[in-house]
Amino acid sequence: MHPNYPTEVTDPALAPAAAGSPTLSHDNFGIGARVTLAVMSADYAEVILGSLQKADATGLEVQTGDVSTFVAGREPDLLRYLSQLISAAGRGGAHVVATVHLSRGCPGEVQCELPGGAGPLRSEIVELEETGVQAAAEWALYPLEDTGRDGVDPDHMRDIYAAVDYAKAKGTFVKSEHFVTRLEGDIARILETVAAGWVLVGRTVQHVTTHLTLSINSPSAR
Amino acid sequence: MHPNYPTEVTDPALAPAAAGSPTLSHDNFGIGARVTLAVMSADYAEVILGSLQKADATGLEVQTGDVSTFVAGREPDLLRYLSQLISAAGRGGAHVVATVHLSRGCPGEVQCELPGGAGPLRSEIVELEETGVQAAAEWALYPLEDTGRDGVDPDHMRDIYAAVDYAKAKGTFVKSEHFVTRLEGDIARILETVAAGWVLVGRTVQHVTTHLTLSINSPSAR
Repeated sequence: MHPNYPTEVTDPALAPAAAGSPTLSHDNFGIGARVTLAVMSADYAEVILGSLQKADATGLEVQTGDVSTFVAGREPDLLRYLSQLISAAGRGGAHVVATVHLSRGCPGEVQCELPGGAGPLRSEIVELEETGVQAAAEWALYPLEDTGRDGVDPDHMRDIYAAVDYAKAKGTFVKSEHFVTRLEGDIARILETVAAGWVLVGRTVQHVTTHLTLSINSPSAR
Repeated sequence: MHPNYPTEVTDPALAPAAAGSPTLSHDNFGIGARVTLAVMSADYAEVILGSLQKADATGLEVQTGDVSTFVAGREPDLLRYLSQLISAAGRGGAHVVATVHLSRGCPGEVQCELPGGAGPLRSEIVELEETGVQAAAEWALYPLEDTGRDGVDPDHMRDIYAAVDYAKAKGTFVKSEHFVTRLEGDIARILETVAAGWVLVGRTVQHVTTHLTLSINSPSAR
């Protein structure tokens, strides 16, 4: 655990809520994902539909669209679904690109229903079953903090570096590149790394998003 | 022009530079993109390589990797390249997904070489030639401001809403969805919209990134 991360935080229910804001819970905090699967083969539609069926959506709201699939729910369900979905597509053997966008702390469509300062909300680090499918990935993390809290000023790069240090300890970190961090490993380990950065920054920042592009079975990587 | 955007900003060279920071210019401000093309057909490799050759890279540094292609340079060159690259892939007729990640204000690999507060840097809105290729897209914009400036407090949602209002005026806006804004139109119009939001927020915020997923020729959209 990187020292910049609080290892112990008091009950999130005790976090100061803005006047008039709803009581924070994991069900109204806007925890969710958008995922896009691209399968580079002639039978891409069957592979994508088959993968969507193979992923366990228990506990989740899933809405499939023409650009991405929106998934909402608690972090362990969300990450299990993403890991199963993406690894199922990769197991077909075709070159697959998956883009994953995670968000927390800004529910609602047109604007955040939680006003700034209503969070943060503590979540636990998620552990996933190994998938057996390897990927290379590029990762960006965005702590969207305007005000700071508990005497700590906002510093989005400090939070990002702490998450990158976590990835180094996890073993998925390969290198820092322009705008992104390169990760490699089992899809479950990559998603655990990304979700951990997102959740850990989310213990001190209300609105946190992260974007991940995974490449599986790339001919360029061979 | 949305009233939240400054229509006139004084010379960016007059922006206060942090002690010891380099003189800001469009060549050292970390203006660049990462783009990933996914072509859902058996001949995907030829389509991607052919599209990379058709895009005019004049004035740009281009590094192709196995997860994304990194492109660095000034905004007009960058956006022209992205528009030509993505539309070339779409013209082949296959279902194409393109992910675009733009960044400014945080150059360097391991950490920002410009310390926080060295920017912002003014750029002009980019205009592109129509491509004739239509797309649906999902867009997220991230103003990464820690301190505010000129007496204006950081408020990342205020900046995002102003950019969405710009998209509405531009005609590419379709609707707000969870975590993203849906855009539709010619690929050039979509990229102009996204780049305008990025550049306009960048007039008051040093580090601004934006992520766009474009879907072209989707069978689900028909």
